[in-house]
Amino acid sequence: MINVGIVGGTGYTGVELLRLLANHSQVTLKIITSRSNVGTAVSDMFPNLRGRIDLKFSEPSIESYRQCDVVFFATPNATAMHQVEELLAAGIRVIDLAADFRLKDLSVWEKWYGTAHVSPQSVEKAVYGLPEMNREAIKQAQLVANPGCYVTAVTLGLLPLLRHGLINPATIIADCKSGVSGAGRSASLGTAMCEVSESVKAYAVKGHRHYPEIRQNLRQLDARADLVFVPHLMPMIRGIHATLYADVVGDISKVQALYEEYYAAEPFVDVMPAGSHPETRSVKGANDCRIALHYLPDSNKLVVLSVIDNLVKGAAGQAIQNMNLMMSIDEATGLHGLGFIP
Amino acid sequence: MINVGIVGGTGYTGVELLRLLANHSQVTLKIITSRSNVGTAVSDMFPNLRGRIDLKFSEPSIESYRQCDVVFFATPNATAMHQVEELLAAGIRVIDLAADFRLKDLSVWEKWYGTAHVSPQSVEKAVYGLPEMNREAIKQAQLVANPGCYVTAVTLGLLPLLRHGLINPATIIADCKSGVSGAGRSASLGTAMCEVSESVKAYAVKGHRHYPEIRQNLRQLDARADLVFVPHLMPMIRGIHATLYADVVGDISKVQALYEEYYAAEPFVDVMPAGSHPETRSVKGANDCRIALHYLPDSNKLVVLSVIDNLVKGAAGQAIQNMNLMMSIDEATGLHGLGFIP
Amino acid sequence: MINVGIVGGTGYTGVELLRLLANHSQVTLKIITSRSNVGTAVSDMFPNLRGRIDLKFSEPSIESYRQCDVVFFATPNATAMHQVEELLAAGIRVIDLAADFRLKDLSVWEKWYGTAHVSPQSVEKAVYGLPEMNREAIKQAQLVANPGCYVTAVTLGLLPLLRHGLINPATIIADCKSGVSGAGRSASLGTAMCEVSESVKAYAVKGHRHYPEIRQNLRQLDARADLVFVPHLMPMIRGIHATLYADVVGDISKVQALYEEYYAAEPFVDVMPAGSHPETRSVKGANDCRIALHYLPDSNKLVVLSVIDNLVKGAAGQAIQNMNLMMSIDEATGLHGLGFIP
Amino acid sequence: MINVGIVGGTGYTGVELLRLLANHSQVTLKIITSRSNVGTAVSDMFPNLRGRIDLKFSEPSIESYRQCDVVFFATPNATAMHQVEELLAAGIRVIDLAADFRLKDLSVWEKWYGTAHVSPQSVEKAVYGLPEMNREAIKQAQLVANPGCYVTAVTLGLLPLLRHGLINPATIIADCKSGVSGAGRSASLGTAMCEVSESVKAYAVKGHRHYPEIRQNLRQLDARADLVFVPHLMPMIRGIHATLYADVVGDISKVQALYEEYYAAEPFVDVMPAGSHPETRSVKGANDCRIALHYLPDSNKLVVLSVIDNLVKGAAGQAIQNMNLMMSIDEATGLHGLGFIP
Repeated sequence: MINVGIVGGTGYTGVELLRLLANHSQVTLKIITSRSNVGTAVSDMFPNLRGRIDLKFSEPSIESYRQCDVVFFATPNATAMHQVEELLAAGIRVIDLAADFRLKDLSVWEKWYGTAHVSPQSVEKAVYGLPEMNREAIKQAQLVANPGCYVTAVTLGLLPLLRHGLINPATIIADCKSGVSGAGRSASLGTAMCEVSESVKAYAVKGHRHYPEIRQNLRQLDARADLVFVPHLMPMIRGIHATLYADVVGDISKVQALYEEYYAAEPFVDVMPAGSHPETRSVKGANDCRIALHYLPDSNKLVVLSVIDNLVKGAAGQAIQNMNLMMSIDEATGLHGLGFIP
Repeated sequence: MINVGIVGGTGYTGVELLRLLANHSQVTLKIITSRSNVGTAVSDMFPNLRGRIDLKFSEPSIESYRQCDVVFFATPNATAMHQVEELLAAGIRVIDLAADFRLKDLSVWEKWYGTAHVSPQSVEKAVYGLPEMNREAIKQAQLVANPGCYVTAVTLGLLPLLRHGLINPATIIADCKSGVSGAGRSASLGTAMCEVSESVKAYAVKGHRHYPEIRQNLRQLDARADLVFVPHLMPMIRGIHATLYADVVGDISKVQALYEEYYAAEPFVDVMPAGSHPETRSVKGANDCRIALHYLPDSNKLVVLSVIDNLVKGAAGQAIQNMNLMMSIDEATGLHGLGFIP
Repeated sequence: MINVGIVGGTGYTGVELLRLLANHSQVTLKIITSRSNVGTAVSDMFPNLRGRIDLKFSEPSIESYRQCDVVFFATPNATAMHQVEELLAAGIRVIDLAADFRLKDLSVWEKWYGTAHVSPQSVEKAVYGLPEMNREAIKQAQLVANPGCYVTAVTLGLLPLLRHGLINPATIIADCKSGVSGAGRSASLGTAMCEVSESVKAYAVKGHRHYPEIRQNLRQLDARADLVFVPHLMPMIRGIHATLYADVVGDISKVQALYEEYYAAEPFVDVMPAGSHPETRSVKGANDCRIALHYLPDSNKLVVLSVIDNLVKGAAGQAIQNMNLMMSIDEATGLHGLGFIP
Repeated sequence: MINVGIVGGTGYTGVELLRLLANHSQVTLKIITSRSNVGTAVSDMFPNLRGRIDLKFSEPSIESYRQCDVVFFATPNATAMHQVEELLAAGIRVIDLAADFRLKDLSVWEKWYGTAHVSPQSVEKAVYGLPEMNREAIKQAQLVANPGCYVTAVTLGLLPLLRHGLINPATIIADCKSGVSGAGRSASLGTAMCEVSESVKAYAVKGHRHYPEIRQNLRQLDARADLVFVPHLMPMIRGIHATLYADVVGDISKVQALYEEYYAAEPFVDVMPAGSHPETRSVKGANDCRIALHYLPDSNKLVVLSVIDNLVKGAAGQAIQNMNLMMSIDEATGLHGLGFIP
């Protein structure tokens, strides 16, 4: 059994880790920490866990982490970087669900996250946890930077295109739609039911933190890649829908077969038949990414539709997928839940 | 392995059976029938099943049912009664998720369902599939009548009270709130997003088919029992919240302990701490029923709050729980999924 | 023209007052105050007002109030009581949308609102602003206590019954369902989209502040009246649905005609045909209350369904109705907006 | 007073016309027709109209139309074209809310609408009813083709850009998000609450009927214009959010001032401050279009955000605006309702 700890499990990625790990056959949940909730049963905060998880939130400490083989940081940005080296030194594998180790260029990180990075050496060690790009490296990793939710949907949508040079990499537009849970669990007017239900809006058009992360991924595939990224808030809880546009170069006639082949062995990427329109609900609660392709001959553009559950493949599910890889067990363990229809 | 068939799996209880059975370790899904969709892959109708269930809808026939140990009828009311005897005669166990075998009094059934019953003998054989009332009988049953969704929430909420004679059984009011999926999957103006979202209404105040079924359950516990039952349609997909009112008789001071004890061994009934307010989302996707008690001394009334997911404990999950009992495997197999927060 | 001021217009009742007053033909909006937003244009906070209301939030002061004939307090509870006497002394009419002047029994008020009342004399002067009960007194009032939202729906639903002694007044159960806007506009986890959407729950079963207010109204009609009141939170923005149960005494056969007659002259109460099921959306944005009656002969209970928009007839619309009465203009001025379907 | 008739008022544009016309000071509603509902009171179908509109649906006939100065066709596509000439010959002005007279090129119309056009001469007479493009022609029109909802949002968003040649007109991408009411009022699985709530999807990526209509508008402004148009279905009732992308050519530095000036005199177009993110709810129920501009220097793209209520500025409200222009009364009469927050 893998002994697991969770740091800062009071947010939505935390409770989603708990929901998924409760049914993970190879995991023993040892500790979950929260400074401000020490002594509270997690099932008092999240009643869906009643009768299934009887842990209490505890004070974070290196001693308690030592019981763990793997520790997930489900903390705010710029938190894990303060503690990670101590855990690594103790031989504990770490998966950070926040952004601390995602960007290799520290000056870019510091610009977008507004603070100095205190652990450049851990950034260097960190493996970017997108299995579809980095599976072998993840297997060897001590520290995994779990990708952002938008970033996962967009990167998986574009990966085969860029690998095969089928689009002009400077013409990418990513018009992305996210459920409200992407904004986290906090008392905020901006995520109140009466403010966001029955309404749609774009936000952060001038710049969103996932932009440099997407760009970093795309440039690993093609150094010329860049994109326009506009996120939108949807009146729903879970789900991301990325609508991706790019100018085609070269022969696009086999693009459907190419995607199907590219992702054939991937346990969590589903290329739908040409002309499909994936719905976010088809992955609600599941670790799947569904992709569909549409070529528009009049404009010579390819439109890629890519959907995930932001809390699963976009956060907690992918983190568990990474853990499975790091611990050399079946990559899909604990991730067999299907999407919810209805 | 248990060989399973599903008759009429194109509705919401059908796809929910598929979602749950896909992760049931003891089940092999053999057939799923739908006369109007023969040859269609179920995953083409329900994309959440893509890559997980590769069955096609087939023509119903006794030959194909013979491959099955258990057959679920996820058909409209008054369908299973036409076929059940043939299956039982072939030694196949049957679980009907519709209402054909729920009411023991055929004249009552015929009044509420508006048609003659063609199989009185199967009604006689049928065991009412509420494990918390009938576990031992279910284990021996060849034919199980799976309870209605409202009925499950209300009966579980009142069971210990009536068993212990703590309320006046003639004073029960069940004010019930249901998500829209309870109305089934069909092209109907009455369940259109623009008709039911952002609105609440009562319906069928004069009489709902679940009323005689609840009354039948309650009268098994106390022959004087009766109730007022008012269902309401909620602007959400899944979930039932039953708010139950009754006049207290006798000593109510130990009611909390009594409920906890009564349900202590039940795998799927959770008595919350006194004064709790269960949320339907805490059981979304899960086979759980959560109950909380509030005694109001001024009016000497007990208020019981009982929540389930209408498609799981109120339909497909409970059907699988019944199958597990009938097949003598662990009652909770395949039913470990937790509720969704958020 | 009536010169109007609004104190504390940054909540949902404030913006709803603005939405309605913007189209009130007899009103000039003079000031809107908010200590924490002095200088901000109201249309910067509420973009629906752009181009229609060009006021800025200003510092509250008796000097600015002197420009006004009527001042609405859209402030938190226990705010207006500190300022009201000064305004009244200056000859300004006051309508309080909070609870400061609703309960005549100060000890009850202090128990439920958790603080000492600083202005008993203004409570004495205040007229309870339910036009269907107190129209003539409102016309003469200097100070109106605008009713609570639940209270309006419940009282209007029961008024003719109690006036005519048709129910046992000690058997009333009010099972009420409210949209989230009833909880106000604030940064709070409890009203976050991800916490309340796709879920239903009861709350405050042990006691809600609207309980003593409803009881006070009912006891004006029948001194023996009491009720059980259970509020529930609905996954929608606006709307209250009250489901009211009571034991019938006497001859109920003419109850439909009696309601129709009772409310025939009321501009904002609509008695639907017997057997109807009013939807909250039919009053969304409108100042209407729709009521339907169902007599259940088996249990000899009457079920009354009563719906309002909590922000209109339950708050801002009713406040304007009161203002119209106080200022001797047509009671319906500015309140002609119809409900939204869809 | 203007005597008004509505043909086919049983859909969402029909009831929205009724909601708005009920408060139009210059209109007398004379008839509303529906072959399948003759004799039914409109307020029985739409209870929000109870007490405000007491018309019954009647049989369509030229005799009854003769009472009207203006007739709105709120009928399915390919309906008005069969009747329009008879009405025009009788001197009745006609506004078609469907698509019969929107496309000037009949071969394009016939391709997208799948039937032969029976009234080419009326297409020739018809004025395209977008006041911001065609105000003077609308004033003289006998027949107005009311624009499509997506078309309105996109065209208003791009109008000043194309007039001033500030973008490359061949690079336009319109990623559009619509509430479900855009799909109309009908019994359809595709618009069921359980199918579309809590989910987002693109649809009709290969081609949507509003594409040729948008293109026709844009090419009136610049003959080289073309676009990629991808509509998406949102889990909400009302609202369209168009996110528009285009490559900038020339000097973009004054684009904000240019938009403000361009729309300064328009009663229903609101250019928000630079960098704003308009919400669809800010126009819910209102005839407004709100627009915000974002220039992205890295990619040299302009992003225009444009929101409307699809049933108001996208249908019934714009139709009334057109009627006001045709009848030479104040263009904004009856259209003063503000958006709903919350």
